[in-house]
Amino acid sequence: MPDQSGLSEAVLYVCTTCRASGDASTRTAGARLLTALRDQAADMAPELRVEGIPCLSVCKRPCTVAVASPGRWTYVYGDLDADASAATILAGIGLYAGTEDGIVPWRERPEAFRKGVVARIPPLASAQPDTDAS
Amino acid sequence: MPDQSGLSEAVLYVCTTCRASGDASTRTAGARLLTALRDQAADMAPELRVEGIPCLSVCKRPCTVAVASPGRWTYVYGDLDADASAATILAGIGLYAGTEDGIVPWRERPEAFRKGVVARIPPLASAQPDTDAS
Repeated sequence: MPDQSGLSEAVLYVCTTCRASGDASTRTAGARLLTALRDQAADMAPELRVEGIPCLSVCKRPCTVAVASPGRWTYVYGDLDADASAATILAGIGLYAGTEDGIVPWRERPEAFRKGVVARIPPLASAQPDTDAS
Repeated sequence: MPDQSGLSEAVLYVCTTCRASGDASTRTAGARLLTALRDQAADMAPELRVEGIPCLSVCKRPCTVAVASPGRWTYVYGDLDADASAATILAGIGLYAGTEDGIVPWRERPEAFRKGVVARIPPLASAQPDTDAS
Protein backbone atom coordinates (compact mmCIF):
# COMPACT_ATOMS: atom_id res chain seq x y z
CA MET A 1 0.00 0.00 0.00
CA PRO A 2 1.27 3.52 -0.74
CA ASP A 3 2.19 6.30 1.64
CA GLN A 4 -0.39 6.29 4.41
CA SER A 5 0.76 9.39 6.24
CA GLY A 6 -2.61 11.00 5.64
CA LEU A 7 -4.66 8.13 7.05
CA SER A 8 -4.78 9.49 10.58
CA GLU A 9 -6.40 12.69 9.28
CA ALA A 10 -9.04 10.92 7.21
CA VAL A 11 -12.49 9.82 8.31
CA LEU A 12 -14.43 7.02 6.67
CA TYR A 13 -18.18 7.44 7.15
CA VAL A 14 -20.30 4.33 6.70
CA CYS A 15 -24.07 4.51 6.33
CA THR A 16 -25.50 2.03 8.81
CA THR A 17 -29.08 2.26 7.53
CA CYS A 18 -28.34 1.06 3.99
CA ARG A 19 -30.27 -2.14 3.36
CA ALA A 20 -29.45 -4.17 0.25
CA SER A 21 -32.32 -5.13 -2.02
CA GLY A 22 -33.72 -8.55 -1.15
CA ASP A 23 -31.44 -8.92 1.85
CA ALA A 24 -33.37 -10.52 4.72
CA SER A 25 -30.54 -10.31 7.27
CA THR A 26 -31.44 -8.97 10.67
CA ARG A 27 -28.54 -6.53 10.58
CA THR A 28 -28.56 -4.01 7.76
CA ALA A 29 -26.00 -4.36 5.01
CA GLY A 30 -24.56 -1.03 6.12
CA ALA A 31 -24.09 -2.25 9.70
CA ARG A 32 -22.36 -5.39 8.41
CA LEU A 33 -20.09 -3.29 6.20
CA LEU A 34 -19.19 -1.08 9.17
CA THR A 35 -18.18 -4.15 11.18
CA ALA A 36 -16.15 -5.56 8.29
CA LEU A 37 -14.40 -2.23 7.76
CA ARG A 38 -13.54 -1.88 11.43
CA ASP A 39 -12.27 -5.46 11.60
CA GLN A 40 -10.05 -5.09 8.55
CA ALA A 41 -8.96 -1.54 9.34
CA ALA A 42 -7.47 -2.86 12.58
CA ASP A 43 -4.86 -4.59 10.40
CA MET A 44 -4.80 -2.57 7.20
CA ALA A 45 -5.28 0.99 8.45
CA PRO A 46 -5.27 1.24 12.25
CA GLU A 47 -4.88 5.05 12.11
CA LEU A 48 -8.09 5.50 10.13
CA ARG A 49 -11.21 6.75 11.92
CA VAL A 50 -14.22 4.70 10.83
CA GLU A 51 -17.61 6.12 11.83
CA GLY A 52 -21.10 4.72 11.47
CA ILE A 53 -23.61 7.34 10.32
CA PRO A 54 -27.38 6.83 10.38
CA CYS A 55 -27.89 8.10 6.82
CA LEU A 56 -25.79 9.59 4.01
CA SER A 57 -28.90 10.21 1.85
CA VAL A 58 -27.77 7.89 -0.94
CA CYS A 59 -30.61 5.49 -0.18
CA LYS A 60 -30.96 4.11 -3.71
CA ARG A 61 -27.37 2.89 -4.00
CA PRO A 62 -26.54 0.74 -0.92
CA CYS A 63 -24.06 0.28 0.59
CA THR A 64 -22.66 3.77 0.85
CA VAL A 65 -19.53 5.29 2.35
CA ALA A 66 -17.86 8.71 2.29
CA VAL A 67 -14.26 9.66 2.93
CA ALA A 68 -13.20 13.11 4.06
CA SER A 69 -9.97 14.68 5.26
CA PRO A 70 -8.89 18.27 5.99
CA GLY A 71 -7.58 19.89 2.82
CA ARG A 72 -8.64 17.00 0.59
CA TRP A 73 -11.68 16.47 -1.61
CA THR A 74 -14.50 14.48 -0.03
CA TYR A 75 -15.71 11.45 -2.00
CA VAL A 76 -18.99 9.55 -1.68
CA TYR A 77 -19.27 5.99 -3.01
CA GLY A 78 -22.28 3.72 -3.39
CA ASP A 79 -23.19 0.27 -4.77
CA LEU A 80 -20.69 -1.34 -2.40
CA ASP A 81 -21.01 -4.99 -1.39
CA ALA A 82 -21.48 -5.31 2.36
CA ASP A 83 -19.68 -8.61 2.67
CA ALA A 84 -16.90 -8.41 0.08
CA SER A 85 -15.77 -4.82 -0.38
CA ALA A 86 -14.09 -3.84 2.90
CA ALA A 87 -10.53 -4.60 1.77
CA THR A 88 -11.09 -2.81 -1.56
CA ILE A 89 -12.48 0.26 0.20
CA LEU A 90 -9.54 0.40 2.61
CA ALA A 91 -7.05 0.00 -0.23
CA GLY A 92 -8.72 2.87 -2.10
CA ILE A 93 -8.61 5.05 0.99
CA GLY A 94 -4.96 4.22 1.43
CA LEU A 95 -4.37 5.67 -2.04
CA TYR A 96 -6.54 8.70 -1.21
CA ALA A 97 -4.64 9.37 2.00
CA GLY A 98 -1.36 9.23 0.09
CA THR A 99 -2.31 12.19 -2.09
CA GLU A 100 -2.10 15.86 -1.26
CA ASP A 101 -5.58 16.80 -2.43
CA GLY A 102 -7.44 13.50 -2.25
CA ILE A 103 -7.59 13.07 -6.02
CA VAL A 104 -6.26 9.65 -7.04
CA PRO A 105 -5.57 9.26 -10.78
CA TRP A 106 -8.61 7.63 -12.39
CA ARG A 107 -6.84 4.49 -13.61
CA GLU A 108 -5.38 3.82 -10.16
CA ARG A 109 -8.74 3.86 -8.40
CA PRO A 110 -10.36 0.55 -7.47
CA GLU A 111 -13.07 -0.41 -9.97
CA ALA A 112 -15.63 -0.25 -7.16
CA PHE A 113 -14.75 3.44 -6.69
CA ARG A 114 -14.78 4.21 -10.42
CA LYS A 115 -18.20 2.64 -10.92
CA GLY A 116 -19.65 3.57 -7.55
CA VAL A 117 -18.73 7.24 -7.29
CA VAL A 118 -21.79 9.20 -6.16
CA ALA A 119 -20.29 12.67 -5.69
CA ARG A 120 -17.14 14.57 -4.78
CA ILE A 121 -16.91 17.90 -2.97
CA PRO A 122 -13.88 20.24 -2.84
CA PRO A 123 -12.06 20.83 0.43
CA LEU A 124 -13.77 23.64 2.28
CA ALA A 125 -10.68 25.75 2.65
CA SER A 126 -9.83 25.89 -1.04
CA ALA A 127 -11.30 29.26 -1.95
CA GLN A 128 -11.33 29.68 -5.71
CA PRO A 129 -13.14 32.99 -5.97
CA ASP A 130 -13.57 32.97 -9.72
CA THR A 131 -13.48 29.79 -11.71
CA ASP A 132 -16.10 30.82 -14.22
CA ALA A 133 -13.87 29.80 -17.07
CA SER A 134 -13.08 26.34 -15.76
CA MET B 1 -35.93 34.53 4.57
CA PRO B 2 -34.76 33.16 7.95
CA ASP B 3 -31.65 33.98 9.94
CA GLN B 4 -28.80 34.28 7.50
CA SER B 5 -25.99 34.72 9.98
CA GLY B 6 -24.35 31.54 8.70
CA LEU B 7 -24.37 32.55 5.03
CA SER B 8 -20.95 34.15 5.10
CA GLU B 9 -19.43 30.85 6.30
CA ALA B 10 -21.14 28.73 3.65
CA VAL B 11 -19.86 27.90 0.19
CA LEU B 12 -22.09 26.95 -2.72
CA TYR B 13 -20.27 24.81 -5.27
CA VAL B 14 -21.76 24.68 -8.75
CA CYS B 15 -20.68 22.09 -11.31
CA THR B 16 -19.89 24.01 -14.48
CA THR B 17 -19.51 20.92 -16.68
CA CYS B 18 -23.05 19.60 -16.18
CA ARG B 19 -24.81 19.49 -19.53
CA ALA B 20 -28.55 18.90 -19.62
CA SER B 21 -29.83 16.12 -21.86
CA GLY B 22 -30.80 17.45 -25.30
CA ASP B 23 -29.60 20.95 -24.51
CA ALA B 24 -27.80 22.38 -27.54
CA SER B 25 -26.76 25.65 -25.88
CA THR B 26 -23.17 26.71 -26.37
CA ARG B 27 -22.74 27.27 -22.65
CA THR B 28 -23.27 24.26 -20.44
CA ALA B 29 -26.34 24.17 -18.24
CA GLY B 30 -24.00 24.21 -15.25
CA ALA B 31 -22.29 27.39 -16.43
CA ARG B 32 -25.68 29.04 -16.95
CA LEU B 33 -26.78 28.00 -13.48
CA LEU B 34 -23.59 29.45 -12.00
CA THR B 35 -24.29 32.79 -13.67
CA ALA B 36 -27.92 32.78 -12.52
CA LEU B 37 -26.89 31.94 -8.96
CA ARG B 38 -24.29 34.70 -8.87
CA ASP B 39 -26.73 37.22 -10.31
CA GLN B 40 -29.46 36.40 -7.83
CA ALA B 41 -27.12 35.94 -4.88
CA ALA B 42 -26.04 39.55 -5.33
CA ASP B 43 -29.52 40.50 -4.11
CA MET B 44 -30.66 37.50 -2.07
CA ALA B 45 -27.46 36.40 -0.36
CA PRO B 46 -24.52 38.75 -0.97
CA GLU B 47 -22.49 37.15 1.84
CA LEU B 48 -22.59 33.71 0.21
CA ARG B 49 -19.50 32.43 -1.63
CA VAL B 50 -20.54 30.86 -4.95
CA GLU B 51 -17.83 28.82 -6.70
CA GLY B 52 -17.78 27.15 -10.08
CA ILE B 53 -16.23 23.67 -9.96
CA PRO B 54 -15.25 21.68 -13.05
CA CYS B 55 -16.91 18.46 -11.84
CA LEU B 56 -18.75 17.21 -8.74
CA SER B 57 -18.92 13.64 -10.17
CA VAL B 58 -22.71 13.56 -10.27
CA CYS B 59 -22.68 13.47 -14.06
CA LYS B 60 -25.96 11.57 -14.48
CA ARG B 61 -28.07 14.11 -12.59
CA PRO B 62 -27.40 17.61 -14.03
CA CYS B 63 -27.39 20.31 -12.87
CA THR B 64 -25.58 19.69 -9.61
CA VAL B 65 -24.61 21.86 -6.65
CA ALA B 66 -23.16 21.24 -3.20
CA VAL B 67 -23.30 23.39 -0.09
CA ALA B 68 -20.75 23.18 2.70
CA SER B 69 -19.99 25.16 5.82
CA PRO B 70 -17.67 24.65 8.81
CA GLY B 71 -19.42 22.62 11.49
CA ARG B 72 -22.44 21.86 9.30
CA TRP B 73 -23.37 18.84 7.19
CA THR B 74 -22.49 19.09 3.50
CA TYR B 75 -25.35 18.48 1.05
CA VAL B 76 -25.16 17.59 -2.64
CA TYR B 77 -28.18 18.20 -4.89
CA GLY B 78 -28.84 17.20 -8.49
CA ASP B 79 -31.62 17.33 -11.10
CA LEU B 80 -31.67 21.13 -10.84
CA ASP B 81 -33.02 23.27 -13.67
CA ALA B 82 -30.32 25.58 -15.00
CA ASP B 83 -32.67 28.37 -15.90
CA ALA B 84 -35.36 28.28 -13.22
CA SER B 85 -33.91 27.00 -9.95
CA ALA B 86 -31.49 29.70 -8.77
CA ALA B 87 -33.94 31.45 -6.44
CA THR B 88 -35.11 28.13 -4.99
CA ILE B 89 -31.52 27.01 -4.35
CA LEU B 90 -30.66 30.28 -2.63
CA ALA B 91 -33.79 30.13 -0.48
CA GLY B 92 -32.87 26.58 0.56
CA ILE B 93 -29.35 27.63 1.42
CA GLY B 94 -30.74 30.51 3.45
CA LEU B 95 -32.59 27.93 5.55
CA TYR B 96 -29.43 25.77 5.77
CA ALA B 97 -27.32 28.70 6.93
CA GLY B 98 -29.88 29.50 9.59
CA THR B 99 -29.38 26.12 11.31
CA GLU B 100 -26.63 25.11 13.69
CA ASP B 101 -25.78 21.83 12.01
CA GLY B 102 -27.03 22.35 8.46
CA ILE B 103 -29.98 20.00 8.86
CA VAL B 104 -33.21 21.70 7.81
CA PRO B 105 -36.40 19.85 8.86
CA TRP B 106 -37.56 17.73 5.91
CA ARG B 107 -40.91 19.46 5.40
CA GLU B 108 -39.28 22.89 5.30
CA ARG B 109 -36.85 21.99 2.51
CA PRO B 110 -37.64 23.15 -1.03
CA GLU B 111 -39.16 20.35 -3.10
CA ALA B 112 -36.15 20.55 -5.45
CA PHE B 113 -33.89 19.69 -2.50
CA ARG B 114 -36.13 16.88 -1.24
CA LYS B 115 -36.31 15.23 -4.65
CA GLY B 116 -32.82 16.13 -5.80
CA VAL B 117 -30.72 15.14 -2.79
CA VAL B 118 -27.70 13.14 -3.96
CA ALA B 119 -25.77 12.75 -0.71
CA ARG B 120 -25.02 14.36 2.63
CA ILE B 121 -21.78 14.15 4.60
CA PRO B 122 -21.27 14.97 8.30
CA PRO B 123 -19.13 17.92 9.33
CA LEU B 124 -15.53 16.81 9.52
CA ALA B 125 -15.01 17.91 13.10
CA SER B 126 -17.90 15.97 14.59
CA ALA B 127 -16.06 12.93 15.87
CA GLN B 128 -18.49 10.26 16.98
CA PRO B 129 -16.08 7.50 17.89
CA ASP B 130 -18.67 4.78 18.35
CA THR B 131 -22.07 4.96 16.75
CA ASP B 132 -22.40 1.28 16.05
CA ALA B 133 -25.84 1.23 17.57
CA SER B 134 -27.24 4.17 15.60
